[in-house]
Amino acid sequence: MLNKSRLLTPGPTPLPEEVRLALAKDMVHHRKRDFVQVMERIQPGLKYLFGTTQQVLPLSCSGTGAMHAAVTNLFAPGEKVLVVEGGKFGERWREIAQAHGLVVTSLVLENGDAVAAGDVRAALEADPSLRGVLVQASETSTGVLHPVHELGVVTRDKDVLLVVDGISAVGISPCPMDAWSIDCLLTGSQKGLMLPPGLALLALSERAWDRVRAVGSSNFYFNLLAERDKSLGHQTLFTSPVNLLQGLAVSLDLFREQTLEAVYAKQWALTSMARAGAVSMGLELLAKTHFTWGLTSIKLPVGVDGSEVLKVAAERCGVIMAGGQGELKKSLVRLGHMGHVDWSDVLAGLHALRVGLHAAGGYCAARTYLEDAVNAYEEALRDGCPEIRA
Amino acid sequence: MLNKSRLLTPGPTPLPEEVRLALAKDMVHHRKRDFVQVMERIQPGLKYLFGTTQQVLPLSCSGTGAMHAAVTNLFAPGEKVLVVEGGKFGERWREIAQAHGLVVTSLVLENGDAVAAGDVRAALEADPSLRGVLVQASETSTGVLHPVHELGVVTRDKDVLLVVDGISAVGISPCPMDAWSIDCLLTGSQKGLMLPPGLALLALSERAWDRVRAVGSSNFYFNLLAERDKSLGHQTLFTSPVNLLQGLAVSLDLFREQTLEAVYAKQWALTSMARAGAVSMGLELLAKTHFTWGLTSIKLPVGVDGSEVLKVAAERCGVIMAGGQGELKKSLVRLGHMGHVDWSDVLAGLHALRVGLHAAGGYCAARTYLEDAVNAYEEALRDGCPEIRA
Repeated sequence: MLNKSRLLTPGPTPLPEEVRLALAKDMVHHRKRDFVQVMERIQPGLKYLFGTTQQVLPLSCSGTGAMHAAVTNLFAPGEKVLVVEGGKFGERWREIAQAHGLVVTSLVLENGDAVAAGDVRAALEADPSLRGVLVQASETSTGVLHPVHELGVVTRDKDVLLVVDGISAVGISPCPMDAWSIDCLLTGSQKGLMLPPGLALLALSERAWDRVRAVGSSNFYFNLLAERDKSLGHQTLFTSPVNLLQGLAVSLDLFREQTLEAVYAKQWALTSMARAGAVSMGLELLAKTHFTWGLTSIKLPVGVDGSEVLKVAAERCGVIMAGGQGELKKSLVRLGHMGHVDWSDVLAGLHALRVGLHAAGGYCAARTYLEDAVNAYEEALRDGCPEIRA
Repeated sequence: MLNKSRLLTPGPTPLPEEVRLALAKDMVHHRKRDFVQVMERIQPGLKYLFGTTQQVLPLSCSGTGAMHAAVTNLFAPGEKVLVVEGGKFGERWREIAQAHGLVVTSLVLENGDAVAAGDVRAALEADPSLRGVLVQASETSTGVLHPVHELGVVTRDKDVLLVVDGISAVGISPCPMDAWSIDCLLTGSQKGLMLPPGLALLALSERAWDRVRAVGSSNFYFNLLAERDKSLGHQTLFTSPVNLLQGLAVSLDLFREQTLEAVYAKQWALTSMARAGAVSMGLELLAKTHFTWGLTSIKLPVGVDGSEVLKVAAERCGVIMAGGQGELKKSLVRLGHMGHVDWSDVLAGLHALRVGLHAAGGYCAARTYLEDAVNAYEEALRDGCPEIRA
């Protein structure tokens, strides 16, 4: 009551009122006409969101479930893939691939670095038996945006599938599947889509579908060919997550009303704002050049305990942010600004960070970090978002 | 989607999640046991909120309805009352009293001034036939807090009822009915109580109830004696606003969990914050010394059109503030910070004011209005809220 709770994590994100009302609608049966209408309604919006003419499949699982579905449908055990390991979610690609019996070559990056397309090209040329490149569009654990557009240029003329985890990118920063020659693009519901967790979305290119047919996965759940058949008939293979799909229909309407361009412009402005505020406080960013548009990873001064910063920010300011993951757990604050989050939320996050930093013994001399942040926001909105480095 | 809508008006205020969920509960019948339980539950919370041992009556009407109920039950046509006219709601007391056939003496104040208790004492001594003093605890149109505590000292030894409109004070700043010798205290649901509009609450002192019996109002609706009889049996005289009362039960639980002291401390900090931010922007406040704790009235520079400021703040920042009322319509911005509003909302309001001011041709040189505001908030929280001038 004294402080509102503000969820500024890299997913789940807050939900818009329109979505919450849709989630509260009465239940319908997933084999009846009412539900078919929901499924008919979402497909054009999903194609717009993904930038594809392909069918986009809803899957009843988390984002990791969709990663598992992609790997097990696109590659046969024993095949070789190249994994971009730029953080915890790059590692997850490797773990899923290894669990499926794939032979993995990893490009392991320093925390905060984006992959260089030239390194991917060199690796593929060094080993022509590699059948896929598995990468995050946005590595959520570090706040780094990998240059997916450039990777598409590398893979499109080779017999190599570009498999992209777009979990913290789709609906946040540009990731047009067809234009960027992405063979598999997937995302989860709880990030840019402004929905609760529990729903994943996945689309494959023509040549990826050919590969799925060739591989002939024996999956019972996550059988993408069977899911596609059902999806073309506006159903799902097994019980559908009904209210999440009712919410999705509304979320997609919001994207089409606002336009993706406007959403990206806002996200670009929020990421510019968060960086400016953190830098004005004298803090360093983890990402060096390629910044994710939906979160900002901020390094804490040596000796400051990140868990204390987060605790104070939550208790004294009501702002819930995330720490680092793995070895970065206590040295990083990840300020999420994706989904249903706006400039004022980021302002709250920056001030809560300062309050937490101060309480945890960090020094912050900056007098104008809030003004610097709003000025950067306004400037970024005015100047528009740049093309992603291509 | 690009900006959240933030309601920073002096009521209605945003609603907490707990209250919204209560409002969405299934309907119950107002003469059945389920509803009686709601009514039993609210009375202790209302007595705590009002600071009284008297029964607090829920009325199905707006705040103005409760003002009408008070005047028509407490005074007989032809009786004389003193009205403190410090703004639009003081005028409203006069209009209601005149409509009921009372003879009104008005103490008309300059906009921004609080009444002086000495002036009330002098008026009552000049005309001993005056039977009541009608006043706002907080004059919402100007953002002025009248010294109700001091007025109680003046009226309590006279045959004069102190009738207090606490619409933007109850649950916002201290207004303890019994301790301050208030004879009638009333409020509406859409301010400090964090509920939708449509419910009013009213309590009377022992001597006020004696007066009600003596006056013997012929009101069919707004018959307070009959409402009290029903209320003691945990019902209302006519159909009850069921879901508002379900919401009230939850809102009152929140007040008791947090304690009134903590709510007042927050409100004091928010009002300190809003003033500091506005002053840092070089703007003047309308109230000179006695500031309402739930809103701040900010004067615009000459030549700046307040309606343009509000329009830009809403369109570009998503922040909905109020203008002035009557002759102050375009020269004032009223930034509401009552109810379910916290420090980050006030920060948003201040920035939106600056954006609107700038767009409307106002000059604002301040570089540190946001920092000055959060610093004032933290300082006020640290130092605690002062006693209301008594």
